[in-house]
Amino acid sequence: MSTGRSVVLLSGGMDSATVLAIARAADEECYALSFDYGQRHTAELTAAKRVAAANQVAEHRVMRIDLGGIGGSALTDSAIAVPASGGTGIPVTYVPARNTVFLSLGLAWAEVLDADAIYCGINAVDFSGYPDCRPEYLAAFQRMANLATRRAVEGARLEFRAPLLDLSKREIVALGARLRVDFSLTVSCYQASADGAACGVCDACELRRQGFAQAGMADPTRYQSGSSA
Amino acid sequence: MSTGRSVVLLSGGMDSATVLAIARAADEECYALSFDYGQRHTAELTAAKRVAAANQVAEHRVMRIDLGGIGGSALTDSAIAVPASGGTGIPVTYVPARNTVFLSLGLAWAEVLDADAIYCGINAVDFSGYPDCRPEYLAAFQRMANLATRRAVEGARLEFRAPLLDLSKREIVALGARLRVDFSLTVSCYQASADGAACGVCDACELRRQGFAQAGMADPTRYQSGSSA
Repeated sequence: MSTGRSVVLLSGGMDSATVLAIARAADEECYALSFDYGQRHTAELTAAKRVAAANQVAEHRVMRIDLGGIGGSALTDSAIAVPASGGTGIPVTYVPARNTVFLSLGLAWAEVLDADAIYCGINAVDFSGYPDCRPEYLAAFQRMANLATRRAVEGARLEFRAPLLDLSKREIVALGARLRVDFSLTVSCYQASADGAACGVCDACELRRQGFAQAGMADPTRYQSGSSA
Repeated sequence: MSTGRSVVLLSGGMDSATVLAIARAADEECYALSFDYGQRHTAELTAAKRVAAANQVAEHRVMRIDLGGIGGSALTDSAIAVPASGGTGIPVTYVPARNTVFLSLGLAWAEVLDADAIYCGINAVDFSGYPDCRPEYLAAFQRMANLATRRAVEGARLEFRAPLLDLSKREIVALGARLRVDFSLTVSCYQASADGAACGVCDACELRRQGFAQAGMADPTRYQSGSSA
């Protein structure tokens, strides 16, 4: 039995905005879920609210979790600097078990809503340095979730969908444009100012700029005055 | 490489107090983690603090998560009554995806601490109505976690341990007693009063009473005056 209802993890960045547009295009009744986890860039949450409103979601919920209190990432721990783009290995912007925590909370809400699906913007191409953005990770999470919930035990499906998993940033920009995503509402920068202006130098800024350039599209990103962008 | 460090999920009930004693007996440096998730029985958290202090943990952290905001359980939603013991199927005290959320947050902290293990009091015997208390669930969670973290990718083990998984309540009481667990510090009741007195009629009270009776041990539980116990 399908309810046509889904939970969409919405960060406020261009990827999850595109995912929300995909879910809406599939005629899903969408429940958007964002997290206030002590991230430095609260401009993300402001962007998430704008994106949720523009897509007429059934409900947008911002859950607070104090993941920040345990530190361990440049995104939540002010003692660790956000680096300029480049570098190899797992980035210091990796937040411990972040996707596991986010998908788990999405699973909890989906179960309460009796939703069929949980959409997320996980992407393995550009962010291959993050262990929890890999297809094998997501498949393992799905297998665990199939055993975890009342809904699963009672025989209903609850499917994790990551429609951007194998797309490049260029392809995401092109797909979002086809779906009329208003990218000017989104914020990707790891250290955006409160009004959403981007730093222009972090990994996320660099990937976004390349994506728009390669797609041959105008990039609506606003940069901080004095940034190198 | 072992750090001898572990995260112990500590609810304040008799099971997790026993688990903490097991970890301490194994000479682990323990980091206790409790959750304030909008549960009705905040007496649990007070009990968790007492148990953590009595066991000289390296640190005790109480993480706040607003799981309660999404409702769906008698333990977090005041519109759903906590039933007396008995009944079949998955109980209304089941909290959607609770163990998945708790284990995920435990995983996050364990990664930051560079811990080898995460201990939890999951028990499949008495609570077989909860899908996320089954051995196959925990095994699937472990497989997912092995793919999720920087620590795993870098080749270190991070093991989920549920030493009570196959024990009856009687066996847990007996084991705790051997390890000198002070059960008078713990609270099991789903609707304990603020000072930790138990209702005497819910599933958790009934299971605890049976456990002590079957183990032939004195039960230090304090009951609310006027309760049927």
